[in-house]
Amino acid sequence: MAEGVKVVAEALAGGASVEGLYLAPGWEGSPGAARVVEQAVSSGVRCFALDPGVMERTADTVTPQPLLAVVGMAERSLDDLRSASLVVVCAGLRDPGNAGVVLRSAQAAGADGLVCCHESVDLYNPKTVRASAGALFHLPVVVEGEAAGVLEQIGGWGIRRMAAVAHEGQDYSEVDMAGKVAFVLGNEANGLDSDVVSACDSVVTIPLQGRAESLNVGVAASILCFEAARQRRAGGRR
Amino acid sequence: MAEGVKVVAEALAGGASVEGLYLAPGWEGSPGAARVVEQAVSSGVRCFALDPGVMERTADTVTPQPLLAVVGMAERSLDDLRSASLVVVCAGLRDPGNAGVVLRSAQAAGADGLVCCHESVDLYNPKTVRASAGALFHLPVVVEGEAAGVLEQIGGWGIRRMAAVAHEGQDYSEVDMAGKVAFVLGNEANGLDSDVVSACDSVVTIPLQGRAESLNVGVAASILCFEAARQRRAGGRR
Repeated sequence: MAEGVKVVAEALAGGASVEGLYLAPGWEGSPGAARVVEQAVSSGVRCFALDPGVMERTADTVTPQPLLAVVGMAERSLDDLRSASLVVVCAGLRDPGNAGVVLRSAQAAGADGLVCCHESVDLYNPKTVRASAGALFHLPVVVEGEAAGVLEQIGGWGIRRMAAVAHEGQDYSEVDMAGKVAFVLGNEANGLDSDVVSACDSVVTIPLQGRAESLNVGVAASILCFEAARQRRAGGRR
Repeated sequence: MAEGVKVVAEALAGGASVEGLYLAPGWEGSPGAARVVEQAVSSGVRCFALDPGVMERTADTVTPQPLLAVVGMAERSLDDLRSASLVVVCAGLRDPGNAGVVLRSAQAAGADGLVCCHESVDLYNPKTVRASAGALFHLPVVVEGEAAGVLEQIGGWGIRRMAAVAHEGQDYSEVDMAGKVAFVLGNEANGLDSDVVSACDSVVTIPLQGRAESLNVGVAASILCFEAARQRRAGGRR
């Protein structure tokens, strides 16, 4: 379920399979809505006008935007990431908003895909879709069960697997991220399981100052992805 | 209002003026609660046992943690940041969760303070306090009205003011952040007002790839602060 002008526009732009567009009374007054409806109609998407009060009972948000689309899930297989050079693996991430932030930042940093495993959050949670700002419709996502199999497979493709931990890893900014890299992120409260860390090639930490114990996991993923992007722009210079 | 074991513990550790600690029935079963209560009692904080159902009606969260503290606001004056070397200025930030993320990351990156102005969010919103993971009780915060006066004053102290914009600024990673720096961040939807941008010394942008139009503002603040921290660890090397 994609809610709001921006997210629905990204679904259409990303070529997602939009199964229907639902419009609340007064949608004509919403900036950008007319263009989205026009795009949807010209793409052959069926549009439905809702009776008053229906959107409020259907949408996930308390004050819903006046349009909402039902979009088919577009999962990829892990094999599609065989030639990826930047991947994020979520192993235990639970908060839908955090997952959306990871999607948004990973795509913006130029990642090739995101793998969700190990009882991570449902990527199709409406909060995730919203927080991704539409990135869910552009970044290839793979949903897998166990992290162990994922890490073994991507390791076989020459992707260096870097476990992100809050303490005692190598300073992330001193790690060469120029080659093929996957960042592996854990649970908000408990971090990564030790067997997942063991299955990685290296362990990286973002040095923190003061009394801070950890960063928000979406922030940590973002800092790592943008450090990889920075190093690549700088031609591997660290 | 500080909710939950972690945030209340940080309030006590940060020497905040905790005016009262409120305990829901069954608090003894919450991990870490006993230690927090012990700390509170030994600091002379009054503790109150709540009747069943009171916490649910009082706390901001849907499933509240079993303890909550009322804590005095501890605003500083801008003058306290006179010798700061890393400052974040929020000019128009509206989302309480984003503000909490900015606080948490700024503190963790070693910032000396955060200034909130220009109709920015209330830093004492319960969502902000929670999302800050206690950073609100460690990072000096200043609340001011207009951004113009703040920027003029900190500029006079030799702090280079860097406006963060989504497009067409200088690549942030090519900017020298070794000296005294303030990052100036705008509104989630509209960014910074043009007069605020004009009042800054430089304009920086985090280069984005693909179709991404912008980053979450909390993420953008975090990437900038940790780039400053990285450059400083590297001895000014960019």
